[in-house]
Amino acid sequence: MPRYKVILEYEGNRFSGWQRQRKQASVQETLEKAIKEMFAEEVLVEGAGRTDAGVHALGQVAHFDLSQDVPPYRVSDGLNHFLRESGVVVLHTQGVPPDFHARFSATGREYEYRILNRRAPLVIEANQAWHVIPPLNITKMQEAANHLVGHHDFTSFRSAHCQAPSPIRTLDKFDIIHKPAFVGDYIIAHVASRAFLHNQVRIMMGTLKLVGEGRLSVESIPDLLQTRDRRTTGPTAPPQGLYLKSIAY
Amino acid sequence: MPRYKVILEYEGNRFSGWQRQRKQASVQETLEKAIKEMFAEEVLVEGAGRTDAGVHALGQVAHFDLSQDVPPYRVSDGLNHFLRESGVVVLHTQGVPPDFHARFSATGREYEYRILNRRAPLVIEANQAWHVIPPLNITKMQEAANHLVGHHDFTSFRSAHCQAPSPIRTLDKFDIIHKPAFVGDYIIAHVASRAFLHNQVRIMMGTLKLVGEGRLSVESIPDLLQTRDRRTTGPTAPPQGLYLKSIAY
Repeated sequence: MPRYKVILEYEGNRFSGWQRQRKQASVQETLEKAIKEMFAEEVLVEGAGRTDAGVHALGQVAHFDLSQDVPPYRVSDGLNHFLRESGVVVLHTQGVPPDFHARFSATGREYEYRILNRRAPLVIEANQAWHVIPPLNITKMQEAANHLVGHHDFTSFRSAHCQAPSPIRTLDKFDIIHKPAFVGDYIIAHVASRAFLHNQVRIMMGTLKLVGEGRLSVESIPDLLQTRDRRTTGPTAPPQGLYLKSIAY
Repeated sequence: MPRYKVILEYEGNRFSGWQRQRKQASVQETLEKAIKEMFAEEVLVEGAGRTDAGVHALGQVAHFDLSQDVPPYRVSDGLNHFLRESGVVVLHTQGVPPDFHARFSATGREYEYRILNRRAPLVIEANQAWHVIPPLNITKMQEAANHLVGHHDFTSFRSAHCQAPSPIRTLDKFDIIHKPAFVGDYIIAHVASRAFLHNQVRIMMGTLKLVGEGRLSVESIPDLLQTRDRRTTGPTAPPQGLYLKSIAY
């Protein structure tokens, strides 16, 4: 059974999320359907990260097995044919050893979070960034982010529904980048960790936004980690600003 | 009659273009309708550049007169309320002297053209860039662009329907910027001139793409200018890659 690793881009607002759901189509289902149409095989597609509804991917990784040996470029091109207009595309396919697992073999994940900070509503990037109106202090946001880098108990920064056995995670990077927009500012966060808790990036961004607005102090961040209470941190930032950027193996 | 200058962002694929048309809504009409809804006044909105269907704007400029004196921020916020979900937004409003004219007072226009150069179809940027599959040589594209900078007869680079009395234009800038994408490359052109001919940027980009592919030599560009024949240059690049970026006064 040859195993294939695929790198995927998708538009989050077109899906109910990565994982199979009852109502709207999931990315996983959409891929499994395209594989069935192309190869007439029922496969299980395993993804590296279970992105929520609305969350985009620039470089999600998944794997699946086929009974036939197919050149990788034919897998990409063929699936992209059946995936056209679906909102997901295969950027790259590679044959991998049978012990490769998209989720369990991953050694690192990187997310990007995009804010467009201006008064006017978003048009071109309406589904592609978080629209924040009050001017944000980027220096303070970076200072707050620095408190989150490292090995911490992130209980205050995970969803009540998070099923991870441990709330301990190690953030390797949390950089806040500023780019001027034609009017206003892009504020783009780059966050890396071996793994993340459910909603962790979005809760961290919702909290950093309060710091940027001056509604929460930089110094309060270590205390928020200490409380181990989700009710002490900011609201979950909206999904359309979040991009699963890359997976390291 | 107070005159107002507005800076506009719009998503080109939602409109038939800037100018009033019979079928699909134009940006001009959409704005005039919002002004009527807000101020109960029938006005003519004049734009700096007449973008075609599918062409986006990051910083289009327009002007109009009102009989009432309204604080600029109220014009922006009020129009944005009536423009919601329309695909156009007012980024900024400013009161200007009665002799200001969005089109005739303009001293410079800058466009951006975005190519995403990769094999896989576009998803997140489907309506926001030109998808080009063959790998493009960016150095050669820049060399070709350099031949177009300056004062030239651009007859070979204007649409057969162009109504400008003179085909002579002066390109002040034509920079080709490379940015790596997660897979593939962004190739972004920045072009500035006092004014452009109809389809000039798109025909120049369609021609540069042939150079990037190696189907046309850098050295042929001066000859193409000499022919003064539209049939000698490349196809018109698609509108979704083109952004009217800013207007100088």
